[in-house]
Amino acid sequence: MNVTFLEKLSGLRAQKSSVLCVGLDPDPEKMPVHLLKKYSVSEAVRVFCEQIIATTSPFAVAYKINFAFFEALGDEGTQVMRSVLKSIPDEILTIADAKRGDIGNSASFYAKSVFEDLEFYSVTVSPYMGKDSLLPFLNYPKTCTFALARTSNAGGNDFQLLDVGGEPLYVNVAKKVASWAATTPGTAGLVVGATDVKSMANLRKMLPEVPFLIPGVGSQGGSASEVMSASGSGPVLINSSRSILFASAGQDFAQKAAEIAQITQEELGK
Amino acid sequence: MNVTFLEKLSGLRAQKSSVLCVGLDPDPEKMPVHLLKKYSVSEAVRVFCEQIIATTSPFAVAYKINFAFFEALGDEGTQVMRSVLKSIPDEILTIADAKRGDIGNSASFYAKSVFEDLEFYSVTVSPYMGKDSLLPFLNYPKTCTFALARTSNAGGNDFQLLDVGGEPLYVNVAKKVASWAATTPGTAGLVVGATDVKSMANLRKMLPEVPFLIPGVGSQGGSASEVMSASGSGPVLINSSRSILFASAGQDFAQKAAEIAQITQEELGK
Repeated sequence: MNVTFLEKLSGLRAQKSSVLCVGLDPDPEKMPVHLLKKYSVSEAVRVFCEQIIATTSPFAVAYKINFAFFEALGDEGTQVMRSVLKSIPDEILTIADAKRGDIGNSASFYAKSVFEDLEFYSVTVSPYMGKDSLLPFLNYPKTCTFALARTSNAGGNDFQLLDVGGEPLYVNVAKKVASWAATTPGTAGLVVGATDVKSMANLRKMLPEVPFLIPGVGSQGGSASEVMSASGSGPVLINSSRSILFASAGQDFAQKAAEIAQITQEELGK
Repeated sequence: MNVTFLEKLSGLRAQKSSVLCVGLDPDPEKMPVHLLKKYSVSEAVRVFCEQIIATTSPFAVAYKINFAFFEALGDEGTQVMRSVLKSIPDEILTIADAKRGDIGNSASFYAKSVFEDLEFYSVTVSPYMGKDSLLPFLNYPKTCTFALARTSNAGGNDFQLLDVGGEPLYVNVAKKVASWAATTPGTAGLVVGATDVKSMANLRKMLPEVPFLIPGVGSQGGSASEVMSASGSGPVLINSSRSILFASAGQDFAQKAAEIAQITQEELGK
């Protein structure tokens, strides 16, 4: 890590005309059957992810690794994740999608694991426990920590839209998180779902320079052009997982994934 | 798991006159130096936790395993955790302190990992992503899922005390989480810090039957008698970590831990 997350993101966007982040959510039930017949589940996950990375990397500026699917592999999970991570080309960004959130002392151990041991460029965290649960992550100046603000799932409405003093909770969260990174600019970003472009435009207006990690384009329903318009000219990563990963369940899965990745990249670039 | 979490908790409380949960937060910097000289860090963590469990188990009804400290061990982390888990006597409850929180599909993989693979009785989760992020956990009828409501850290004030429609956010969270478990009673509990006994008493009045996991007694400053009074007659687990684990950094660490565990158990029983 010689450059910061933001510098790298900016360089990649210019070079590849892409803001596409491919989300690696290897759900064995959706993976090609021929891989599961040939390998153990852990090995199938590894081969699946590595082949997806090999074919989609020309179109992606980042890969987001969803920890749930690797932890579900049991003891082999960390080794499989490490192998998948190693197969991501050096010039491409990596995001540990782990949604961490704990008191300061524990948070510093999670940060150490993700940034020092696994050497991710970036991580997702939950804001509910407040400032001291985020600072141990923000202390790594070359990384970026994306706090959940407005998530794309149905349950995202349960608390995030509650009115707190005339604004929704997610706005309060976003402003506070951004302020906590004021002394280390670029180290804090926000997760803002593609399914609510009004909220996204609202946040972008308030926080023009904060990086947004935007899930929910594709399978979850957000449209590329609306999202690009709402996210404005600030730093963005648009994540797509299932529509790319599971574009085909046949022998051609990696080729089809690349086709969808390219189409998504082009749509986002319009 | 032949009985539910709540039945087991109730039985243990009657049998052992204890509500003590010992939190396993094995921070190598605070662990006895002789262990770190003799073993690798991973092995030292394993030996440390297993010896603490051996001496404190007469006084405890549960052990809470903090995932941060095991993940920080890298590839060996899961194996060390599995070994520590195995050393906990069968009759005692276990809590995966992992503070999970993700969209439904990912959450179901986290739930599977924690409840089916690792066979924990219980888990902690973050509520920020709402109902669909919790339901995959609540679907396991014999377990209990503790959602963060009012946490004991300083940052707990940043969002949890925000006013939403005349009540603090943590109350809104607590009531919604409890309602989501209405069809599977006993499967949802709340994390309520010992550092704010007023909030605790407030929540107990509203939710007399919901299990509370209460951290923050001991090192973080909450007093045992105030906490027992505020938590009322509903199901509780009072967690103490550092004051027991690091009672001594010498050869007698496990013995001293047992002494503090016994004192804490007795104070909580007064």
